Amino acid sequence: MRLAELSERSGVPAATIKYYLREQLLQPGRRVTATQAEYGEEHLRRLRLVRALIQIGRVPVATAREVLAAVQDETLDLDARLGTAMQALPAGPRPDQEDPAAEAAEREVAKLLAELDWRCDPRATPYRTLVAAVAALTRLDYPAGLAHLAPYARAAAQLAVDDLDMVQEFEGPMAQVEAAVALTVLYEPVLLSLRRLAQAQESGRRFAAAEDGAPRNCP
Amino acid sequence: MRLAELSERSGVPAATIKYYLREQLLQPGRRVTATQAEYGEEHLRRLRLVRALIQIGRVPVATAREVLAAVQDETLDLDARLGTAMQALPAGPRPDQEDPAAEAAEREVAKLLAELDWRCDPRATPYRTLVAAVAALTRLDYPAGLAHLAPYARAAAQLAVDDLDMVQEFEGPMAQVEAAVALTVLYEPVLLSLRRLAQAQESGRRFAAAEDGAPRNCP
Repeated sequence: MRLAELSERSGVPAATIKYYLREQLLQPGRRVTATQAEYGEEHLRRLRLVRALIQIGRVPVATAREVLAAVQDETLDLDARLGTAMQALPAGPRPDQEDPAAEAAEREVAKLLAELDWRCDPRATPYRTLVAAVAALTRLDYPAGLAHLAPYARAAAQLAVDDLDMVQEFEGPMAQVEAAVALTVLYEPVLLSLRRLAQAQESGRRFAAAEDGAPRNCP
Repeated sequence: MRLAELSERSGVPAATIKYYLREQLLQPGRRVTATQAEYGEEHLRRLRLVRALIQIGRVPVATAREVLAAVQDETLDLDARLGTAMQALPAGPRPDQEDPAAEAAEREVAKLLAELDWRCDPRATPYRTLVAAVAALTRLDYPAGLAHLAPYARAAAQLAVDDLDMVQEFEGPMAQVEAAVALTVLYEPVLLSLRRLAQAQESGRRFAAAEDGAPRNCP
């Protein structure tokens, strides 16, 4: 298809597509004349991922380029491509950097992951984010021991199974790596907002003074 | 205790405490002389919450003030205080506003919550965030049907039980509402980073070409 059709089918303005092409976020089409190129389904699919990263995930363009380079590195197996792409994704909200509780948090996280038999590189972004978050909890004297963290890890393990099941609905390694990256970003607000809605239900069940037992407020 | 001791025990500089007092984020101490006030454990506890909101949650000062006003409104029962405080918390990453898929997402979310028998105000912040996130998924043609959302809702329901169990480790309604707000904010990065680590484990299990079966990369 030509650029105009790619724009129509993706809902992305032609000028934006040209910008993505210049920034190497979208692979070039197949040249048919000096001024025209032909695009395929793989361009349509890639555009979805670029929009997920840039517009919705608010990932900086340079970072998106790194993630996409990993996605299309066909010298690596699927797990390695996924790992590299995920590593390039920015971390979520980052707690305090200079935290005196960091050392204790480091040990706590290592213990948790050992107990779960998860093998993780301690330099990886989500590992650092986790340590910083546990350090922030510890520093503020909120509960963050093994017994408190373990239920969240169990929930995360279950979510990861659902995440990867969804990824495997896509066909072919390239589409799967792209989906994994996009779904990681796009399901974060789904998960966090569902958690807040569920808290409101549970709060209603436990604490509401309402006569009918129906939760009266939802944040 | 005097301001100096409050500063030492909380690890918050005296100048910052004075700023929080001026901004009405911290309730005033009990005046003992014209220039000195006495602070108690409730000030120490409130300071932790203020730090969780402002430094770690990056909540704007005006929003933090709203949340705290709800926390201390003793005319309401615990569930109502929790609901109001949570409602004032800012939403997570917000997907596209002007999304043509919004109407379909609205119906999908309503159906999901009805099936779960969750009673939620559709104007509430996390409800709006959820609709926007589902709309973004739909618009980009990623899976976001009932069958896809339900496992995340089930995980969220389980997490809410863990969350509220943790809240009930605190004694008294004021400490519980404060903890609920702080833990909601502080456990978001814990949850999101654990999800990414768990995805790496699951990806290793499913996709790694490594001989020993050990996941080789963790994002």
